[in-house]
Amino acid sequence: MTGDRLTAEVSAAFLRDFATLSDFGATGNGGVERQAGTDEDGAMRAWFASWLKDHGFHTTLDPIGNLFGVLEVDPDAPTMLVGSHLDSQPLGGRYDGAYGVLAGAHAVLRATEALRASGSEQRWNLGVVDWFNEEGSRFKPSMMGSGVFTGLLPLDRALATTDAAGVSVADALAHIGAAGTGKFGEVAAYAELHIEQGPGLEDAGVTIGAVDSTWCAYKYEVIVHGAQSHTGSTPMAMRHDALLGASHLVVALHDLTQEFPEEQLHTSVGEFHVLPNSPVVVPREVRLLMDLRSPSSSTLDIAFPLLQERITAIEAKAAVSIEIVSSSIWQSGPFLPGGVQLVEQVANRHGLSSMRLPTLAGHDATNMKERVPTLLFFVPSIGGISHSELESTSDGDLLAGLGVLTEVLEHLATEGFPDAEEVA
Amino acid sequence: MTGDRLTAEVSAAFLRDFATLSDFGATGNGGVERQAGTDEDGAMRAWFASWLKDHGFHTTLDPIGNLFGVLEVDPDAPTMLVGSHLDSQPLGGRYDGAYGVLAGAHAVLRATEALRASGSEQRWNLGVVDWFNEEGSRFKPSMMGSGVFTGLLPLDRALATTDAAGVSVADALAHIGAAGTGKFGEVAAYAELHIEQGPGLEDAGVTIGAVDSTWCAYKYEVIVHGAQSHTGSTPMAMRHDALLGASHLVVALHDLTQEFPEEQLHTSVGEFHVLPNSPVVVPREVRLLMDLRSPSSSTLDIAFPLLQERITAIEAKAAVSIEIVSSSIWQSGPFLPGGVQLVEQVANRHGLSSMRLPTLAGHDATNMKERVPTLLFFVPSIGGISHSELESTSDGDLLAGLGVLTEVLEHLATEGFPDAEEVA
Repeated sequence: MTGDRLTAEVSAAFLRDFATLSDFGATGNGGVERQAGTDEDGAMRAWFASWLKDHGFHTTLDPIGNLFGVLEVDPDAPTMLVGSHLDSQPLGGRYDGAYGVLAGAHAVLRATEALRASGSEQRWNLGVVDWFNEEGSRFKPSMMGSGVFTGLLPLDRALATTDAAGVSVADALAHIGAAGTGKFGEVAAYAELHIEQGPGLEDAGVTIGAVDSTWCAYKYEVIVHGAQSHTGSTPMAMRHDALLGASHLVVALHDLTQEFPEEQLHTSVGEFHVLPNSPVVVPREVRLLMDLRSPSSSTLDIAFPLLQERITAIEAKAAVSIEIVSSSIWQSGPFLPGGVQLVEQVANRHGLSSMRLPTLAGHDATNMKERVPTLLFFVPSIGGISHSELESTSDGDLLAGLGVLTEVLEHLATEGFPDAEEVA
Repeated sequence: MTGDRLTAEVSAAFLRDFATLSDFGATGNGGVERQAGTDEDGAMRAWFASWLKDHGFHTTLDPIGNLFGVLEVDPDAPTMLVGSHLDSQPLGGRYDGAYGVLAGAHAVLRATEALRASGSEQRWNLGVVDWFNEEGSRFKPSMMGSGVFTGLLPLDRALATTDAAGVSVADALAHIGAAGTGKFGEVAAYAELHIEQGPGLEDAGVTIGAVDSTWCAYKYEVIVHGAQSHTGSTPMAMRHDALLGASHLVVALHDLTQEFPEEQLHTSVGEFHVLPNSPVVVPREVRLLMDLRSPSSSTLDIAFPLLQERITAIEAKAAVSIEIVSSSIWQSGPFLPGGVQLVEQVANRHGLSSMRLPTLAGHDATNMKERVPTLLFFVPSIGGISHSELESTSDGDLLAGLGVLTEVLEHLATEGFPDAEEVA
């Protein structure tokens, strides 16, 4: 372990490649739009596959479109995998996911070079992955590629999923030439570097966030049932306005957060479809997704019955019925303390401040940690903004994260995933 | 004037044709879906054009897709036109518009036959029209065909209007073979028969509603501006949730009606689009249409400033900005008393109860009354339901309306449009 900062040459190469990457699907306001399986996603993936081959990586494309690249040292050894995702939200930011994939690729390259130069013996090969469709905006659910890879989501169900226009994942993958036939081998451990997407690090003035736990998330698909009628001639008292009922629900879900201490409950509705959505028709139906998150599942277990009481009141007030058609529960959980400590100690050797924090957002690491030893760490998001064209992280922080990741990989490739307190 | 009821043969022919018409775009629950310029609209229009030709009508198709059919008696005489629209809302009812067009065609046929049989001299030819795109669900604005015909809407602007998929009216008309080149001649007067679409006639136990005025309608295109961010990791206090702001607005617009006496103010939001509408993104923008209607423009002139106060409060509460990007004002206005009296007196001769009422909904007659003497009358809607698959009117009421319309046309064709108190 050297604690060396990146050389100027290595830093410049990374920033140059990141600028190139950010041109794919670039939007007017500094963001990107390259939803999973679109032409923009395909073009970027093609560029990234070329980059991997040009730098000596052995690539594998699997049937759900996950793209792996390994710098093989020992063909029989398992792989220490690092990665994230290249797809984005609609009008999303250029850092979310893409930073982790490109930093992962550069870190694998630099770590392997350093280990070769020092003659260190690797117990694991180092590899990078671009997980397909982490964002879940075009095709639900999110974290699809890592979900299939870890067996948490069946492949055939993922491939059959369709977008709003009826295009299936299978067709979208074929369209961009990303329907692979490869099968990636044994993964020994997983690391992911990501932007924080919240204001915690910036507010604390800290550069490296070692993620020690995930928030839990309860998500519900809801249908508000009303009855179609004429917006002009139907008396107000005769209406069953699904949009009015759904609007009350959006407000109630928001106000629910005020019943709990600050930062104990986050709620939102991101997706919201009105039927028939015609100017002079009282809406018959609204389909929406409710998202409740908390560091503690007991908070959600208190919040949800409170919400149900409010739903009953809304049904009466707006003369609609509100149906919860499905729910998905992600429980909170810790990351392995050995990984958290390794990130902190490497940050310290680099002269960087660090702190422990939870991840409020889901990441591919959330899937991978169910299967293999996994670590996740963050660099700051300016203003805490993400899923927005305005998302940003300073070049200095990007390079700080890359430096830490490179040394973390050197450690893992030679020493394996540390138990707690084992880190040198 | 005979006051004769329809013969059994004429009644059966009408109901048979109406059943045929209701098969075009039929939905599972007894409704229809044939939005303007779709294949279903095209198929029905082709059937109706054939019907007209088979029954000796001379047809004209104009550049905005209005289809006219005239039973010519005197080629130099102007036309007394009757009609409505064959297009429907999404999952709409089978009666809205289609009843008025088919009853108009049958009434023109029977009235002309009766006048020929009695040797009466016609001052006007009788004709029927299917106005293009009255509903305005696929292409805005509503009442497009009659709007262009009356010069209230420029043809080139109407043709350039696009639907949500980017298809223009011009392309949709060409697709269904309805982009005509004809120019319809002089219209002497206009009559329209429609279902009420509200509960007034049914509640009063009355069969014929003579429309004496229109409600006024103020419509506003609104954009709620927020900022995109992550639904998980963005602290609640940092959010600018456009959907939360828009939901408050929907509730406030509804609650505004409670500040006024019953039936003095109707409000609604029928169209509501969320951007980007992704499960894990706090919405950056909502685009919606607000619809405020009242018998009196002074009510709306009081209501709107109250709404603006509430909008200011919502902007502060939800940390969004709310922009009214356009407004359309339809002022209330009377129908000619002579037409109202004619309908009442013919109903009376048919032994049918009648009452005067306003129209809360807009109709093609609302455009036509700005240009030529116009009358409009209603038959009951069961349960007051419209813009719904459940919309219904009894066969007895359908035939009652057809009988009244036939005799109204006989009167108009021979006597012209009556002044008040002139009706025999």
